[in-house]
Amino acid sequence: MSITRRAFMQNTAITGLGLGLTGQTKSLAQPVSKPKASKINVAILGSGLRGQSHIELLLKRDDCNIVAIAEPDKVMVERSKEIFSKQDASLPKFYSNGDQDYRNLIAKEDIDAAVIASPWRWHTEMAVACMQAKIFVGLEVCGGFSIDECWQLVNTYEATGTPLFFLENVCYRRDVMAILNMVRQNMFGELIHLEGGYQHDLRGVKFNDGVTPYNSGVEYGSKGFSEAKWRTQHSIKRDGDLYPTHGVGPVAQYININKGNRFLYLSSMSTKSRGLHNYIVNHEKGGANHPNAKLEFKLGDKVTTMIKCANGESIVLHHDTSLPRPYSLGFRVQGTKGLWMAVNKSLHIEGVSPSHRWEDAEPYLKKYDHPLWKRHEAKAVGAGHGGMDFFVLHAFVECAKKFENPPFDVYDAASWLAITPLSEQSVNMGSTSVPFPDFTRGRWIDTANTFAVSDEY
Amino acid sequence: MSITRRAFMQNTAITGLGLGLTGQTKSLAQPVSKPKASKINVAILGSGLRGQSHIELLLKRDDCNIVAIAEPDKVMVERSKEIFSKQDASLPKFYSNGDQDYRNLIAKEDIDAAVIASPWRWHTEMAVACMQAKIFVGLEVCGGFSIDECWQLVNTYEATGTPLFFLENVCYRRDVMAILNMVRQNMFGELIHLEGGYQHDLRGVKFNDGVTPYNSGVEYGSKGFSEAKWRTQHSIKRDGDLYPTHGVGPVAQYININKGNRFLYLSSMSTKSRGLHNYIVNHEKGGANHPNAKLEFKLGDKVTTMIKCANGESIVLHHDTSLPRPYSLGFRVQGTKGLWMAVNKSLHIEGVSPSHRWEDAEPYLKKYDHPLWKRHEAKAVGAGHGGMDFFVLHAFVECAKKFENPPFDVYDAASWLAITPLSEQSVNMGSTSVPFPDFTRGRWIDTANTFAVSDEY
Repeated sequence: MSITRRAFMQNTAITGLGLGLTGQTKSLAQPVSKPKASKINVAILGSGLRGQSHIELLLKRDDCNIVAIAEPDKVMVERSKEIFSKQDASLPKFYSNGDQDYRNLIAKEDIDAAVIASPWRWHTEMAVACMQAKIFVGLEVCGGFSIDECWQLVNTYEATGTPLFFLENVCYRRDVMAILNMVRQNMFGELIHLEGGYQHDLRGVKFNDGVTPYNSGVEYGSKGFSEAKWRTQHSIKRDGDLYPTHGVGPVAQYININKGNRFLYLSSMSTKSRGLHNYIVNHEKGGANHPNAKLEFKLGDKVTTMIKCANGESIVLHHDTSLPRPYSLGFRVQGTKGLWMAVNKSLHIEGVSPSHRWEDAEPYLKKYDHPLWKRHEAKAVGAGHGGMDFFVLHAFVECAKKFENPPFDVYDAASWLAITPLSEQSVNMGSTSVPFPDFTRGRWIDTANTFAVSDEY
Repeated sequence: MSITRRAFMQNTAITGLGLGLTGQTKSLAQPVSKPKASKINVAILGSGLRGQSHIELLLKRDDCNIVAIAEPDKVMVERSKEIFSKQDASLPKFYSNGDQDYRNLIAKEDIDAAVIASPWRWHTEMAVACMQAKIFVGLEVCGGFSIDECWQLVNTYEATGTPLFFLENVCYRRDVMAILNMVRQNMFGELIHLEGGYQHDLRGVKFNDGVTPYNSGVEYGSKGFSEAKWRTQHSIKRDGDLYPTHGVGPVAQYININKGNRFLYLSSMSTKSRGLHNYIVNHEKGGANHPNAKLEFKLGDKVTTMIKCANGESIVLHHDTSLPRPYSLGFRVQGTKGLWMAVNKSLHIEGVSPSHRWEDAEPYLKKYDHPLWKRHEAKAVGAGHGGMDFFVLHAFVECAKKFENPPFDVYDAASWLAITPLSEQSVNMGSTSVPFPDFTRGRWIDTANTFAVSDEY
């Protein structure tokens, strides 16, 4: 199989290279056809804490070899190696000679699929490089920087025929999938309004002591560890919904975004910024005289985004990462027959629930448990984020083996990533509304949603 | 006292008349001074079901005489008379000779204060007429039609010195006031983001059988009864947040809108409209062949509005009245130290609540029960909407007796009413943001919030 891939790659390398940058595209809405593999060679681009979590899960599978890892940070390389040692797995080849060494990995290694779990800044160029090399891409989530970058992903896919799987794990959350099941059985009627978001107190993630990842100090950048090394800088420089996909991914499945529906425009509003500054000042290792007490953060503590969809629905996204609060993605799924809200774990369905009253959602979530969860529950136990990381990686590997279009593809990646730069624009222009490009070039009109239509993956 | 008022009125009638229409104003930010009355003459302008609820409460007081009622609907006149008979109270004089007969009431009767509870269309002109006649105004809530109308209210107040009390009862809801108490004790820190709204399934209010007010049929307009007679038409013709004040009133108190803070701009998004049509089609008295099945409703089933405030906060308002759902005003009060959410009856306060966990709000709501509720609880029992109607009318009467500025004054009325026309504009222009006028002409900067600063009213 690898020979097939390499031969194909050599044939397409010249036409594929740099297409994203010039904007020239071929009209390819399907991946190129390839024979199904029983086992694939996988690379990890970025083996920080998130990449390491993927390594652990992939090592449990008998249909993957992790053959190469690109990671410039020596501490993370050592931590990654330990995972292999603990599981008695043969060590992959490490490319850790700087940020660009992943290009050598792509050029030299025989790779079928790559998981990209690097800091956000690298996502697009790594994904483009992989697609050009015919390496099936699994791209970790984030928010985009520019609309151009989203088009690069689309254009490169259309030029190379290499699929990209956008690894939005929350689409596989058990309650999220049970609700999907209910939506598809028309329990909520025609959907009207949806909410989701990322409401997660990240203060102890964006700052630490440089050694321990969580809740350990007030350092960041070169003095920080893990995400504090790079993610914090985004809160200093940017204002908008920086992390929209955990909220919008599941919601997009409910209303078939890019599959019969699409985002039309959004408006975003941001608040003043207080949480991160207060965190530094009030922390026992910080204080008013700590150098970081002088930092000015652009990111408003709460960013709210409204998205209008072609089929007439509205979506509200909440971004709330700098204030003390319980974790909540804040889902709301509301249609002509009723609604579910995650925060009070309740739903109301007309003619079923007592009139004008909430019901506990739990019995419904059990009854409508998605077939995928029923089938694979045992394997998901222990996987990250309540098991959903198992499912997203499982689907990634199965799609990669067939080199087939994933449920969340490059068009979804582009549309979801685009929320961030559009949100930044809207916030900076006083919440004016800004339009989404149609990244599918009209194909959304007659494309079907393939996500979780069976119990396979 | 009445003689004093009449004498004053004659002195100011010429200058006051029509000032709202010409835009000429005097610079009066305080009501004219009048001696305190121990008992006042009250008129009811509009004694539909809402007006009748006010009559019942006012008849229980020994400091009010209801001397006149303007109500053109004979059915409502008869219902109103029954309330007086049941309570052995002397009947007021009724003005029911058409929509304009309230002007005769104002001209002929010796009235100190008026409660305006007519259909929305009459609110502003009735309020303007009362203010011009030096009648202390209690104005029921709704959304406005135009910014000009909001200025009329402000200009008339400034020209006449007659106070206007905007009767937003939800500001007096027990949990809302306990949270106000907590906000003022800095329990949530500096406030950052707030939510509220009107999420109330009104399908069975907007349509009925013409006799029974609720859940009785699919008729409206001339064939409907009570609110179905007139409110439904707004859902046919308008799209925007038609009823913002129950959500925004309490929130405005938390962040001192017009008292050190103000609304800067808003953006609104509306969805497709399905709920009211479906209700008619699926109702046992309706069906696909019922004439009202042909109605087209402009009002989107869910309207979301984001408001940016001068002190950097954001407010999200939910308007959701056409879909099956439990009643919920959806409050969220979030600051640098924690947040309260009404829908899950929970809060989180940093350093007090378990880290990253919700706590039941109930013990806090009890502990921080507002002094006003503690003092008057017994009297509030049985009053409408969980007792809060007692409080708003109590404050109205106490302020009217002193002819003093109420806690929710004409500037609040103008700002809150303005949300509706601004929301309609924003929705109709693709959720672009639209600015609020500063109805206070800069006075918001150094005005103090007087709402519920003691246990008096």
